Amino acid sequence: MRIALDAMGTDRAPGPEVRGALDAVARLGSDVEIVLVGDREVLENELAAHPRTRGRITISHAPDRVRPDDPPATVMRRRPDSSVVRGLRLHRKGEVDAFVSAGPTGAVMSAALFSLKRIPGVERPAIATLVPTVKGQCLLLDSGANLECKPKHLVQFAHMGVGYVRRALGHENPAVGLLNVGEEPRSGGEVLRETFRRLSTDGSLDFVGNVEGRDLVTATCDVVICDGFVGNVLLKFYESVASVLFRLLKDPVPGAWDNDDRLDRVFKVLDYAEVGGAPLLGVRGVPIICHGGSSPKAIRNALRVAARAVRSGVVRHSAREFQSLAALRPA
Amino acid sequence: MRIALDAMGTDRAPGPEVRGALDAVARLGSDVEIVLVGDREVLENELAAHPRTRGRITISHAPDRVRPDDPPATVMRRRPDSSVVRGLRLHRKGEVDAFVSAGPTGAVMSAALFSLKRIPGVERPAIATLVPTVKGQCLLLDSGANLECKPKHLVQFAHMGVGYVRRALGHENPAVGLLNVGEEPRSGGEVLRETFRRLSTDGSLDFVGNVEGRDLVTATCDVVICDGFVGNVLLKFYESVASVLFRLLKDPVPGAWDNDDRLDRVFKVLDYAEVGGAPLLGVRGVPIICHGGSSPKAIRNALRVAARAVRSGVVRHSAREFQSLAALRPA
Repeated sequence: MRIALDAMGTDRAPGPEVRGALDAVARLGSDVEIVLVGDREVLENELAAHPRTRGRITISHAPDRVRPDDPPATVMRRRPDSSVVRGLRLHRKGEVDAFVSAGPTGAVMSAALFSLKRIPGVERPAIATLVPTVKGQCLLLDSGANLECKPKHLVQFAHMGVGYVRRALGHENPAVGLLNVGEEPRSGGEVLRETFRRLSTDGSLDFVGNVEGRDLVTATCDVVICDGFVGNVLLKFYESVASVLFRLLKDPVPGAWDNDDRLDRVFKVLDYAEVGGAPLLGVRGVPIICHGGSSPKAIRNALRVAARAVRSGVVRHSAREFQSLAALRPA
Repeated sequence: MRIALDAMGTDRAPGPEVRGALDAVARLGSDVEIVLVGDREVLENELAAHPRTRGRITISHAPDRVRPDDPPATVMRRRPDSSVVRGLRLHRKGEVDAFVSAGPTGAVMSAALFSLKRIPGVERPAIATLVPTVKGQCLLLDSGANLECKPKHLVQFAHMGVGYVRRALGHENPAVGLLNVGEEPRSGGEVLRETFRRLSTDGSLDFVGNVEGRDLVTATCDVVICDGFVGNVLLKFYESVASVLFRLLKDPVPGAWDNDDRLDRVFKVLDYAEVGGAPLLGVRGVPIICHGGSSPKAIRNALRVAARAVRSGVVRHSAREFQSLAALRPA
């Protein structure tokens, strides 16, 4: 399989991308090839600086890059030669099987939607982020693509999320929870109450009911559904709490716990770099969205997320599922 | 001053309430009297079990209590003899200066609104929770009273929050942030964009702009404004992350860090019991809302929050401020 990696996405590009890619080809299966998309000369220089073999890494030239202040909706038109747009074009044309980018989230999302198009039946693609929990991981979606959602969108997120967890993570029967302010069916506003009703009567889902903020990290279910506003605020907050606690615990008496790897092991549970990247589910392809501040490790893990999604055929399965859901719907 | 304490509010009532009250009278100023509201016989027995002097603690009889499954809107009518309704009646009649309860949040809020009425000019009272941050504390509101908000409500929250931080916490010029998914003025949906515009042009506020989930714990401002849905999810999540991390760090090798008080000191930063209770701002009185799972320490601290709010005259000041805001508004 071939994965295109936007080499101009992170804040310190292309260093983290190139190191992440080198790491990934060494660790992922020998069937994985990586196409770095970015300025050829810059990338050749960066690769040359690494003594390791570049193995199955090639370069696809893109002279421009998306800037953080580019309005997302204008990127396709105004940045046709950017690494984001060119990388997605490779994906659309079938030259690669996935596209990984740490470029500005809004721009990557908007361009991915435009280039790859939606799976028929999906009205709103959603970003699905694996959140570290005490028991393992939980998929939170939407984590930023749709600020406001109708019940039908949230129900679609549930189906996309379950499909992803089942296929790409190999968890046969994922439990779904609806993020709310209380556990009772009447909790929340009208959108959530109606979503609760629809999920409750959806025989193809293992719906456990409403879950609250506290249930996320204690992992009472495998897929948590929410709108993209709440998901985004929550994830950014999560990330910050973990890193602040880590700093607080390390800092007060410098050196005191530096060699205590128990601390590292505990915080590894909550380390975003371990997750790497979040797929945009519901489009005809595998776009993986990473943080602008991604480390080489995060990039490497995002490439692993991409490889896993491609191998699992999650897009094909999702298309088939939404086809049968549409068939079930009253005309 | 006299503070009524709902003695039947916590999950393990009245133990935590009575111990918290005994602690509070010992620590708060000698002008603080506490009125325990609940079943007289039960409370007499509980007080008798404590060797400490009951000092300035009296009992006001209330034979009934609000149950978790009572619909909040029915409590005034169906539970007239509950500790919540009777305690609030004491407050409305001016027999006490504040009311503290760990009863079901929705019920306490609804009964407080009904009994105490709003400050003229305030359309939506809001729960204001002090969130522990690395630098101290930040006031998050609304943290659960209003699931959906219009721009005018969010702007009112800003004024109520600033008034509270200024008066009750003695911080002269609090900086206000609007919780959003991005820092740019155009971030978020129409409600947040319009709120951003209004806050930006409000000369009486020190508005720092949009803040993101990650800014909450790193404390880039003193007052953070959001709707009650997001606020509630976030706070429950926060609480859970801190306690889960604490358990993870303590548990893997039992005893290893038990005597390491550095860990305790760090987590004290994120310990909700330290905060105790959250005032419902915007009503004509000082109702303080606590967790159902409050410990004696949390109850004691909630009583301290109440005493501080009463001493500061925050309600009087807020009423005056909303009066002048109304005067500024175009007819």
